[in-house]
Amino acid sequence: MVTPALTVRQLADQHGPTLDKALEALRTREYWSPHPEHPKAYGADGTPGAAEGKAAFDALLGTRFPLEQPGTDDWTGGETSPYGVELGITYPHADADVLLPAMRDAMPAWRDAGPKARAVVCLEILARINARSHEFAHAVMHTSGQAYPMAFQAGGPHAQDRGLEAVATAYAEQTRTPATAVRWTKPQGKRDPLELTKEFTAVPRGVALVIGCNTFPTWNGYPGLFASLATGNAVLVKPHPRAVLPLALTVRTARETLAEAGFDPDLIALAAEREGEGVARSLALRPEVRVIDYTGSTAFGDWLEANARQAQVFTEKAGVNTVVVDSTDDYRGMLANLAFSLSLYSGQMCTTPQNLLVPRDGIRTDAGHKSYDEVVADLAAAVDALLGDDARAAALLGALVNPGVVERLDAAPGLGEVALASRPVPHPEFPDATVRTPALLTLDAARYADAPQDAPYLSECFGPVSFAVAVDSTADAVELLRRTVRERGAMTVGAYTTDPETARLIEEACLEECAQLSLNLTGGVYVNQTAAFSDFHGSGGNPAANAALCDAAFVANRFRMVEVRRQA
Amino acid sequence: MVTPALTVRQLADQHGPTLDKALEALRTREYWSPHPEHPKAYGADGTPGAAEGKAAFDALLGTRFPLEQPGTDDWTGGETSPYGVELGITYPHADADVLLPAMRDAMPAWRDAGPKARAVVCLEILARINARSHEFAHAVMHTSGQAYPMAFQAGGPHAQDRGLEAVATAYAEQTRTPATAVRWTKPQGKRDPLELTKEFTAVPRGVALVIGCNTFPTWNGYPGLFASLATGNAVLVKPHPRAVLPLALTVRTARETLAEAGFDPDLIALAAEREGEGVARSLALRPEVRVIDYTGSTAFGDWLEANARQAQVFTEKAGVNTVVVDSTDDYRGMLANLAFSLSLYSGQMCTTPQNLLVPRDGIRTDAGHKSYDEVVADLAAAVDALLGDDARAAALLGALVNPGVVERLDAAPGLGEVALASRPVPHPEFPDATVRTPALLTLDAARYADAPQDAPYLSECFGPVSFAVAVDSTADAVELLRRTVRERGAMTVGAYTTDPETARLIEEACLEECAQLSLNLTGGVYVNQTAAFSDFHGSGGNPAANAALCDAAFVANRFRMVEVRRQA
Repeated sequence: MVTPALTVRQLADQHGPTLDKALEALRTREYWSPHPEHPKAYGADGTPGAAEGKAAFDALLGTRFPLEQPGTDDWTGGETSPYGVELGITYPHADADVLLPAMRDAMPAWRDAGPKARAVVCLEILARINARSHEFAHAVMHTSGQAYPMAFQAGGPHAQDRGLEAVATAYAEQTRTPATAVRWTKPQGKRDPLELTKEFTAVPRGVALVIGCNTFPTWNGYPGLFASLATGNAVLVKPHPRAVLPLALTVRTARETLAEAGFDPDLIALAAEREGEGVARSLALRPEVRVIDYTGSTAFGDWLEANARQAQVFTEKAGVNTVVVDSTDDYRGMLANLAFSLSLYSGQMCTTPQNLLVPRDGIRTDAGHKSYDEVVADLAAAVDALLGDDARAAALLGALVNPGVVERLDAAPGLGEVALASRPVPHPEFPDATVRTPALLTLDAARYADAPQDAPYLSECFGPVSFAVAVDSTADAVELLRRTVRERGAMTVGAYTTDPETARLIEEACLEECAQLSLNLTGGVYVNQTAAFSDFHGSGGNPAANAALCDAAFVANRFRMVEVRRQA
Repeated sequence: MVTPALTVRQLADQHGPTLDKALEALRTREYWSPHPEHPKAYGADGTPGAAEGKAAFDALLGTRFPLEQPGTDDWTGGETSPYGVELGITYPHADADVLLPAMRDAMPAWRDAGPKARAVVCLEILARINARSHEFAHAVMHTSGQAYPMAFQAGGPHAQDRGLEAVATAYAEQTRTPATAVRWTKPQGKRDPLELTKEFTAVPRGVALVIGCNTFPTWNGYPGLFASLATGNAVLVKPHPRAVLPLALTVRTARETLAEAGFDPDLIALAAEREGEGVARSLALRPEVRVIDYTGSTAFGDWLEANARQAQVFTEKAGVNTVVVDSTDDYRGMLANLAFSLSLYSGQMCTTPQNLLVPRDGIRTDAGHKSYDEVVADLAAAVDALLGDDARAAALLGALVNPGVVERLDAAPGLGEVALASRPVPHPEFPDATVRTPALLTLDAARYADAPQDAPYLSECFGPVSFAVAVDSTADAVELLRRTVRERGAMTVGAYTTDPETARLIEEACLEECAQLSLNLTGGVYVNQTAAFSDFHGSGGNPAANAALCDAAFVANRFRMVEVRRQA
């Protein structure tokens, strides 16, 4: 037997305090993160800095990705950066009939290691990923199109936070029952008591499939990946064909860590696919696959929920996010905040507002009454001002992730009156990057009074397209908000109002329709951003997603508790 | 506004300590119950005793059950006691189009009351049910066929324990996030920190449907009923047409308590059905219904899981429970324990062992080596001895719950060689009761080596029919155990062995196939009994049930957490 390079005890000493702090943060919901979000925090302490991260990324381009796993029957690739660079990396293509049995075989020892060992090994994986945040940032940038600063933060420390949050939540759920044998003694009056010893073991469901997305491969992938791994399952990662690299790096790091800690590296593996292979569909129906995490289209998410009946299925699908604009005591702050929300990553976040509902008669503000047209024009101007400088615009917008987004943006002017036209932005570094400013269209809800189902704003238009919608009143806005959440789902809802009763009505709508609400954001927090350990991402209670990141329901059914009781 | 007769504060003072003790018991898994299980514990302290309970039950016979709820369009009934008595009680039949909207309207105030208020109101409901345990015992006895002592314990205090366990588990999950507003402050280096206030509200899914069963209307009904109510949902109770009364009493008690505490009684209602109406099927697909708890046949449970896609569906279906008999150091204790398990309530428990796997070459015991035939004969003799006295037999067996069980028992001799024949037992009090001793059949697994799917023991034969199955070895027994759990599901597994390595193999099989294991029970604890706050009922990880009573996964998805965050 080979002595592992890392012992669980070392890892527990090293990461136990971080786990404890994560558990405490989840209880208090106050701000906390162990992962510095500033790029300059990396590199000084022996971790790879910006230059080393770039060099590590560059060294991968045009190569066969170094990942050895069972059942590799081919190598496949084809990622093209939204910044116009061919990555030219190939990844192992897996024969599921070989790989899945190997993954199953890896599970019993991982199960027997227990929740604490699994948690600290996961924390070691995250720590290693964290140390290489610059390399991951380039990988995320050149697959998602996020600008470097965002790819660094959202794809690095913030994704790692969400992964850690999942590990801690999973640990808390698995340790609700005692770790050591329980002596159960039931009095029987004058007779001897009944006595049993009882042991409880958290057992995994089976192989967990993570189906990654194009826009946030790590941020959206880590919660399910780490929740499943921490609860004893083996994890098969099927990345989006356009965003393989960030998850391939993740899988490689995890396999290395598991092996060094004395566990079978086949507890995690990559399932890269050939173009058009549709491997997610076949993997999702494999009997070995008992948990699925998916981020992507509503159509495939619904298909998974309906067909992958042997698995617990967690989906984040499409939604239509609304902001109700009723009144504000900080008009400039509101406009600036909304302009940033619409521009960040070209509106390609599942949390970006799409519909801005504004009363037709205008709104009260600290700068006086503003008509509907003024609000729309002022918002358009705020976006223009934010994105007036091309270099700054490119650093905020990033690039359009894929041709589908470009097509939707090009078609947008047909959906309403153009209040703000999209324009291409030259990228200072990547001339072939597809960078566009957001389009803002204005529509009147009255036009769709007789056929509301035809309203463009009642469908998701993913990408840099938003709709200012004129409504009769704030009360009508709340009704449209309710309908939108109920029928289309929403990851976020925003609202601006100075009136407590209006705030109450909007809150009530969000409580009843089950959507997360941000009220009166006028500073440096945006409706499309959530913080791990504090904010829930999605509610799991409307059609946009059947799960929230990261609550107990997200982890508690990834394992089962098996009890062995014995006559004492 | 009417001042409620009960205030939440009073209830919190009264029941808060019980809730705390329940939470502590769930953490330690040590023995605890606030509900005395001895019938004589009731009556002395002002609660109704045995005579009052009987009188209360008798007074209901032949009447229109006193329950006023919206949408009552008819009265329906038709319960016949397995002891031969027509109950003659009619119940309100509900127009769902009237009742369900009323139930939805009741929810917001219940949601706003918060987790603690909901918990203590639920505890008050349980306390009132507990005080009337004798009345409930008659109701359970004359619908399920359980003998009075069991109807009292399992239908009364033990069911109440499981209800309380669900309330406490639900409370724990809902209070993981802070109850008061959180101040979230994120440092920004030299700039002002980002500041938000955040509030978290547990919101209900919607109307929860509880579909009751014939054999354990309260024990199997209470966990889902109270878990849903405690998480803010309104609960519609659809009892089995043959076991309405125990749940009608429950609903009435809950409605009275809710109204007295100032809440809308329509938070809970009864949906009694006409014979053959199949109302569960139509209710399960209503859009208002977002949670379903079901105990019953695999066919309908599978249908619910596949079709009631708008709801969280928790099912307990059929399974095939196995006992592996390898060796014992207490042969008499083992035989007595098994004989009791097979006889209790005529084997009509979802937890009753069906298959006893015994090596063909016999087993080692403290009374010397016993051949297969000796083991089977000795077990048959143990059952005979246990049930030799008719009065004692009737008090243990109870009555057969419905004609389907009688038919299966009558057909059983065709399934194998009869090792112990069933016999009718005259009931000392109810001459028309259908009381039968269990049948034990012996079969050789070798006979089904080529067509294992045809083996009678691989199907559930619900009722007093068990199979002693001769297998090649204990290793073969473990393989058959694995196959049975994987393909048919199991609520329980039992095993007898003195060999640590064999125990380990059986444990490993149960961990991998996800089944709850009882080892070497030879005293007064039986494989078919579980204790709330300590034992899990089912695992939720094999085909017998998709949920376990009562873990976090059983409650955590009955509500969602909605966050409202505001610029501070």
